[in-house]
Amino acid sequence: MTQDTTGDDTTRDVLEVARRAREASHGLALSTRAEKDRALLAMASALLDRSDEVLRANAEDVTRAEAGGSPANIVDRLRLTDERVAAMAQGLRDVAGLPDPVGEVVRGSTLANGLELRQVRVPFGVVGMIYEARPNVTADAAGICLKSGNAVLLRGSSSARSSNAVIVAVLRDAAASVGLDADVVQLVPGDSHDSVDALMRARGYVDVLIPRGGAGLIRSVVEGSTVPVIETGIGNCHVYVDRAADLDKALAIVLNAKTHRTSVCNAAESLLVHAEVADAFLPLVVAALQHADVTIHGDPAFQAHEGVLAATDEDFGTEYLSLDISAAVVPDLDAALAHIRRFSSQHSDAIVTEDQTAARRFVAGVDSAAVLVNASTRFTDGAEFGFGAEIGISTQKLHARGPMGLPEMTSTKYVVTGSGHVR
Amino acid sequence: MTQDTTGDDTTRDVLEVARRAREASHGLALSTRAEKDRALLAMASALLDRSDEVLRANAEDVTRAEAGGSPANIVDRLRLTDERVAAMAQGLRDVAGLPDPVGEVVRGSTLANGLELRQVRVPFGVVGMIYEARPNVTADAAGICLKSGNAVLLRGSSSARSSNAVIVAVLRDAAASVGLDADVVQLVPGDSHDSVDALMRARGYVDVLIPRGGAGLIRSVVEGSTVPVIETGIGNCHVYVDRAADLDKALAIVLNAKTHRTSVCNAAESLLVHAEVADAFLPLVVAALQHADVTIHGDPAFQAHEGVLAATDEDFGTEYLSLDISAAVVPDLDAALAHIRRFSSQHSDAIVTEDQTAARRFVAGVDSAAVLVNASTRFTDGAEFGFGAEIGISTQKLHARGPMGLPEMTSTKYVVTGSGHVR
Repeated sequence: MTQDTTGDDTTRDVLEVARRAREASHGLALSTRAEKDRALLAMASALLDRSDEVLRANAEDVTRAEAGGSPANIVDRLRLTDERVAAMAQGLRDVAGLPDPVGEVVRGSTLANGLELRQVRVPFGVVGMIYEARPNVTADAAGICLKSGNAVLLRGSSSARSSNAVIVAVLRDAAASVGLDADVVQLVPGDSHDSVDALMRARGYVDVLIPRGGAGLIRSVVEGSTVPVIETGIGNCHVYVDRAADLDKALAIVLNAKTHRTSVCNAAESLLVHAEVADAFLPLVVAALQHADVTIHGDPAFQAHEGVLAATDEDFGTEYLSLDISAAVVPDLDAALAHIRRFSSQHSDAIVTEDQTAARRFVAGVDSAAVLVNASTRFTDGAEFGFGAEIGISTQKLHARGPMGLPEMTSTKYVVTGSGHVR
Repeated sequence: MTQDTTGDDTTRDVLEVARRAREASHGLALSTRAEKDRALLAMASALLDRSDEVLRANAEDVTRAEAGGSPANIVDRLRLTDERVAAMAQGLRDVAGLPDPVGEVVRGSTLANGLELRQVRVPFGVVGMIYEARPNVTADAAGICLKSGNAVLLRGSSSARSSNAVIVAVLRDAAASVGLDADVVQLVPGDSHDSVDALMRARGYVDVLIPRGGAGLIRSVVEGSTVPVIETGIGNCHVYVDRAADLDKALAIVLNAKTHRTSVCNAAESLLVHAEVADAFLPLVVAALQHADVTIHGDPAFQAHEGVLAATDEDFGTEYLSLDISAAVVPDLDAALAHIRRFSSQHSDAIVTEDQTAARRFVAGVDSAAVLVNASTRFTDGAEFGFGAEIGISTQKLHARGPMGLPEMTSTKYVVTGSGHVR
């Protein structure tokens, strides 16, 4: 074997780690909650004990990123600190505290012929995670996968390769120290796109792929993968202020949804206002948004206000992830529904209204993972929903939709028990 | 436009029906159960009223298939009779009698901050069905999709094109007669593989594809589709006769699982026998299977019996769908688990044992959609499970696993209700 790794070599290497993950997954699927929690707590302690190693490796990544001219926000996401390592450890402890989804009986009955039917949660088997910059995802994903009984293959970004390598080494050592097969947590070998390609084609080896990151990454995985994919996280989220809105609530919700944190998928990117309240609401919301340094890309009604830029269809289709918002006045609720149907990424869309009929119509007519009534889009979140842990927010309709906690990281099987039953 | 339909024309035509399905799905998603049931009953009546038309069209398909030299079993699956049309109508009535999955609250709670959280079943939107010969699937799939609030695009086999065209016309007329948009049920235009290709690439237009048919069809859809797929139906099912088996039960279960109906995915294809009961059981089971005209492809222990052919690894990996069974003696339960892990298609695998520990170990160690204890694999079936209707049996782990009824034909969304809540 030469120093140069070709695509074929990468494929072989990736399939080899996947094969080992499959082997390890058989034992993990049979592990008790106590065994899994012990491993999670050992991982948390090991991260704290070896935080110097982790931070040293991370410093290499940060130095490399800075030397390569990465923008400050990317470098910030890459950077680990004592606090961030402590948060990773706490995340693993939190997951240890959550109920084990494996073995939960989802439905059960005794059939007319006496057969006992139970549908029981079981792990997927092997989960592949493909994600960008933030190295804390490495520990978070490993913890959630382990607790749900899944072996995990982690393919982080090459910019975080030193951090990820050390974090995974620490987690593996900790798993082994309490008797688990270390191969339940593995880094996918290879820095190039070849290793992502190999993972996407590892059908039969990998049960599900979860891409987390920007729109480009997610699209390429969704389109190129023969392994089943759970699509996550693009959020072109709307707030619709109805004719019957309480305008104080509306103002608070729009501001919170847009400005509370701009870089996240549940931030609002578009504002729709019913024509009947436009005269009253537009001056308020334009002033408040501009006071919060938000740039408004508006339709002609919004453009009548100073400082509002002209919005194009592209604006209405854009997930800004910045202090920008598109805005339009709509003649009625149905027009708002039509606009959302056209432009929403089906993540989270909110209505502000005191009118029960309008709220029901909006909830029924908006086909998104989360539909919010008189609440900020920022609430679409596993922690806010009380899930305790979140592997991502699914924007697809198959398997899981919205924030995914531990139960969403499982499949089920039917257990049918008889006493010699035949047909 | 010329007479010749090119791939591009087909793509355009398929996307056009998909676009119309999407439009129609919005209204269907908001339809009440009463409205949907009225349409299902109208469809059932229309099939009976117009059965002459259906049978005439079917006769064309049968004549064409016979002239083309199709084997008798294929022609039989293609052929409709008065009884089969009546069964299609009854199937639609049965679906009308089932509860509406749409709107079911899967989970709900009030969060600490007072937000009300509900996870509610909603339709997928547009479902694509790709299936082979049997034209009754056309009515079955249309009924299940309609009841679950989904518009359906039906891509049957070209051998059934005349039957399918008339059945779909009858169903559409019936839907329209009770005020539904007829485009909730559409035939996918085009007979060539181009139309299947176009359907597989219609991401954004079609929410889920369900292939039903032979292994080749399913593999090509699973590997080629960018639309999310629910994989169905390949069943290389095992019966393992444990050391602690009641041999009378074992004999009845093996015979039933193999011979009750051979052409179905839940038929047994492989028999494993614990070495400790081989001397007692092999003579019985070999004689009984041979008496039922079953050809046994056995390991050396089975080959000691007259008329048993030698089994290869290929035999153990084969879904025969015929009066053939592969058979082997295993030294212990773990060897049975290893064999099943290697060869099972993860559909349905059964253990026959009176030993509770062995049963638990088998249930935990076999990673299949259904694991049966002292019961025939033939019970893995939506009707047997009491689902009332079945669109297929999923052998994948994402979204649905095992027999899929109406709830499996839905997604969910989160409805979050506040009173001006912000973070």
